[in-house]
Amino acid sequence: MEFEEILSSLPEKEGNGLYRKDFLRTWDMSDEDIKLIASAAAGLKALRDRNISSKFFDSGIAVSMFNNSKNMGMEFAFASGCDMLGLTLREMSGRIGPGSLAETAAMVSYMADVIGIRDGRYIEKSSRYMTRMVNTLKESRDNGVMAQRPYVINLGSDEDSPVQTISDLEHMALHFGGIENLRGKKIAVTWAYSPDGTRPLAVPNGIVSLLSRFGTNLVLAYPEGYELMPGTEERAAANAANSGGSFTRTNSMEEAFENADVVYPVNWAPYNFLQSRTDFCDANLERGIELLEHELKENNMQFVDWECTESMMEKTKGAAALLLHDLPAEITDISCVRGEMTAQVYNANMDSLLVQAGLRPYVIAAMVMLTKSEDPKAVLKSLKEKAVKRYI
Amino acid sequence: MEFEEILSSLPEKEGNGLYRKDFLRTWDMSDEDIKLIASAAAGLKALRDRNISSKFFDSGIAVSMFNNSKNMGMEFAFASGCDMLGLTLREMSGRIGPGSLAETAAMVSYMADVIGIRDGRYIEKSSRYMTRMVNTLKESRDNGVMAQRPYVINLGSDEDSPVQTISDLEHMALHFGGIENLRGKKIAVTWAYSPDGTRPLAVPNGIVSLLSRFGTNLVLAYPEGYELMPGTEERAAANAANSGGSFTRTNSMEEAFENADVVYPVNWAPYNFLQSRTDFCDANLERGIELLEHELKENNMQFVDWECTESMMEKTKGAAALLLHDLPAEITDISCVRGEMTAQVYNANMDSLLVQAGLRPYVIAAMVMLTKSEDPKAVLKSLKEKAVKRYI
Amino acid sequence: MEFEEILSSLPEKEGNGLYRKDFLRTWDMSDEDIKLIASAAAGLKALRDRNISSKFFDSGIAVSMFNNSKNMGMEFAFASGCDMLGLTLREMSGRIGPGSLAETAAMVSYMADVIGIRDGRYIEKSSRYMTRMVNTLKESRDNGVMAQRPYVINLGSDEDSPVQTISDLEHMALHFGGIENLRGKKIAVTWAYSPDGTRPLAVPNGIVSLLSRFGTNLVLAYPEGYELMPGTEERAAANAANSGGSFTRTNSMEEAFENADVVYPVNWAPYNFLQSRTDFCDANLERGIELLEHELKENNMQFVDWECTESMMEKTKGAAALLLHDLPAEITDISCVRGEMTAQVYNANMDSLLVQAGLRPYVIAAMVMLTKSEDPKAVLKSLKEKAVKRYI
Repeated sequence: MEFEEILSSLPEKEGNGLYRKDFLRTWDMSDEDIKLIASAAAGLKALRDRNISSKFFDSGIAVSMFNNSKNMGMEFAFASGCDMLGLTLREMSGRIGPGSLAETAAMVSYMADVIGIRDGRYIEKSSRYMTRMVNTLKESRDNGVMAQRPYVINLGSDEDSPVQTISDLEHMALHFGGIENLRGKKIAVTWAYSPDGTRPLAVPNGIVSLLSRFGTNLVLAYPEGYELMPGTEERAAANAANSGGSFTRTNSMEEAFENADVVYPVNWAPYNFLQSRTDFCDANLERGIELLEHELKENNMQFVDWECTESMMEKTKGAAALLLHDLPAEITDISCVRGEMTAQVYNANMDSLLVQAGLRPYVIAAMVMLTKSEDPKAVLKSLKEKAVKRYI
Repeated sequence: MEFEEILSSLPEKEGNGLYRKDFLRTWDMSDEDIKLIASAAAGLKALRDRNISSKFFDSGIAVSMFNNSKNMGMEFAFASGCDMLGLTLREMSGRIGPGSLAETAAMVSYMADVIGIRDGRYIEKSSRYMTRMVNTLKESRDNGVMAQRPYVINLGSDEDSPVQTISDLEHMALHFGGIENLRGKKIAVTWAYSPDGTRPLAVPNGIVSLLSRFGTNLVLAYPEGYELMPGTEERAAANAANSGGSFTRTNSMEEAFENADVVYPVNWAPYNFLQSRTDFCDANLERGIELLEHELKENNMQFVDWECTESMMEKTKGAAALLLHDLPAEITDISCVRGEMTAQVYNANMDSLLVQAGLRPYVIAAMVMLTKSEDPKAVLKSLKEKAVKRYI
Repeated sequence: MEFEEILSSLPEKEGNGLYRKDFLRTWDMSDEDIKLIASAAAGLKALRDRNISSKFFDSGIAVSMFNNSKNMGMEFAFASGCDMLGLTLREMSGRIGPGSLAETAAMVSYMADVIGIRDGRYIEKSSRYMTRMVNTLKESRDNGVMAQRPYVINLGSDEDSPVQTISDLEHMALHFGGIENLRGKKIAVTWAYSPDGTRPLAVPNGIVSLLSRFGTNLVLAYPEGYELMPGTEERAAANAANSGGSFTRTNSMEEAFENADVVYPVNWAPYNFLQSRTDFCDANLERGIELLEHELKENNMQFVDWECTESMMEKTKGAAALLLHDLPAEITDISCVRGEMTAQVYNANMDSLLVQAGLRPYVIAAMVMLTKSEDPKAVLKSLKEKAVKRYI
């Protein structure tokens, strides 16, 4: 995209609703906020593609916490997004104990500008942990413990994964020529079989909550019993009504794929399972967790044919739907015997999937820039004009 | 503090006695050296608080070695202090074997500007290790192995913790309006009970050695048998005599707190215990170490009432003494059943304790800048005048 | 060396054959390429020695992968070389699974400028792994998955270690006053005893392949049966013929040392052993590997007198040969009972060995700069002219 075009899509100063904000859930952000992130990410990418420095910081620390959920792609995305702005990454291992949260939060935050947290294993606990972190930081800042506070970016919780879903949205926008062109598009978000089968809900919850906002015809498909978090479908329905789109639910993957413009086949564990696992975990019932997971995997096997195959792809609009996945996917014949998609489908779509994943560093960098800068348009403009080469 | 005021507190060029020096023990530094570190730290903080870049380095490596003594606060302090100056942190895990010290020291040092070492577990060994590192680096430099050498900062040894104690001093100076206002203040450094109970002596040793230098009335309190390192009390007495203050020792925490302006309740293990542990360790007598630690913990239990409580705080000057601790503290009802201070005292003083801890990155950065720059005043002035924004 | 002299040794623009190239083996590079790396390394060192910034990048990621072969010296060399240019290091632990190479390679590479890989344990597998990584990255770049691709530097494979050997070459050139002065020098590369005894072939293979190119009289010595990789001796013989030098092989360490200008005593495991270990590893025969290693160590013990001693050094030209080693060495009386060299020899040559090791960061930085810049001469010149201080 041309840089001028991107700049003109950015609102003027008064528009930055994200200034000094944290990024926990897309449904706490306005449509304008979401578009602002996407535009700023595009602006940062345009600078880098032109070998122009996007160093927003001269120094500063970015802290990452990956609790119970390593993810190499997201780790590199966070590292890269922060580096692009000039921040130094410092990784925390191990979740901070609740007793000393204020103290530990301060220890890591005196000179930190952003904290990225991924903590997706436990229903409610994960998002509560992030919210407590935000509140603790606010309090410390207000009490003068630190001269400024870092802002928190959710890199994947129990309920949302805004970096992932906004990257997905941007990938679709690039594919269809703008977010406004998503209007009327049929988007199929569907459960898919995986031998692991205990993935958290962050991505399906988040994608259904976000993609229903732009006038799309969103179809959510899953086998009976594989519900998302309470409130998610209601939110999607309300979003659809507000934005002039539609939201429907089905128990048929085929129905969802039929004539779809976009398909997002992805495994998740049902909310009831995740809730029980958290309860068992609280009670330290490890044997119970094992049994629970075993039971779910057995149940999943009824639905091994929920797989994105070539013949499924043929049902989509012009047999050419845009395939989305947050990666890594479980791929039949590559990583397992039966998975979320076949090797043929994966291989045919790999480049596009990798382009999608490659947007995350820019989305992260955009979030950091937006929370620190009242006037992101001016910042991007001045970076463009200074035109410091990223490398000589 | 105003930047001009800070600048004017810095001596002119000829005054920097820390140029090309290492930072192992405060008692090897003059009063002027100590004040210089405090002023430079304040100057760096003033720059950062005004969003002005304090990048002293364009590139360069800082190496950290945390041997047998992880400490998240000090680790982030070192990372932050180095980042603020533009250095990249590289962590070494595992102590370097003595056989190959010259070789290994070179391997990590070719492009390093500073090495921060925390190695506090073993009496004598720890400081000897740091001294050997300094000597090895000097020799390598003199022999032309490297074009420059990194300087060593002690982040906590068996006998001192200069980053901590100079931060403590600076926190007190900010509280009382200047180091000169410490004259005549009653400062209570007292042993406190902790269920762990095997903490090294670096902080109490260091704080008694440093705070006795500025005309204070320093009182050291501990139960019979909980001696600091030989020579520490003698040093404090001499410092007091030299600076027109006083140094007294008591076996009563109450007496120490009585009318105190500052209280520093902190656990430590007696010198004799630490010396024996080192001997047992040399002889590989692990069972002996266990028994020794068990014995000490049993003995400690006689002194569970050496606790900083609200009623203890009421004994202090105006019931409002400044509470110091190097954190993390053992806090009754939060991290243990009986600890160094009660939850009430901790909570009432937490913001101040966190401000104290937050000074360490600046003290570290000041040390690095002072050892690399002959004229720190000119450096701070030029950073102020160039006024490069830390972030746009 | 004077900066102008270094600059003049750099070819003009059209000469950079390394632009957008990877660095896997020296025998895929021309003599001009090799000299260009050495000159650029000298240029970068000259800048740093004059406290002039060599920041070529404003931001960017360097990825390191150390698979099955930790090496502190090379790790710090890579970290330092990248930092010197302005890149941020991100370490990958764990080799990437072959199934998902394209995906994983992309995840780490979106914003990476260089990937340093050390993977030396398995014959053929290691170099094949690096080659596959290069091909995967090329493909991803061609398919538009990333806007640019990182280039790969071999930090030690089964067959070569170009960073090490080019540093060795540069060290010799500095010692003898230029690469052209190596002509006619007698260089002894000889097997030496080590109690471990299972070292890979990268260094001996690489050094024989590289040092035979400059008109040297290269002598390779090893006990019968301790062959290098097939093709290496043939390559050395061809190089010698081409460059007007000579290549001979002997089974006597004494013969090799006799009147030598340079000696490189270093342990390696015979090719046949390494090949069998790889086969056993493929078949998961761990007990077989144990037996194999045991057998080799027993066999090695026949050759404990293949040791670089003072009396061996006395046989060399003027009893003053330049001693090379890639470090760490097995040193008699320091790290073992009998090793590659005696403590006396090590101590007498330590400073020179450490200077040799200290060239590696510059060689790495030179490689990165050369693959990214079409006109390295102009880059060095402009860095020199801008003369940004590395530290104030």
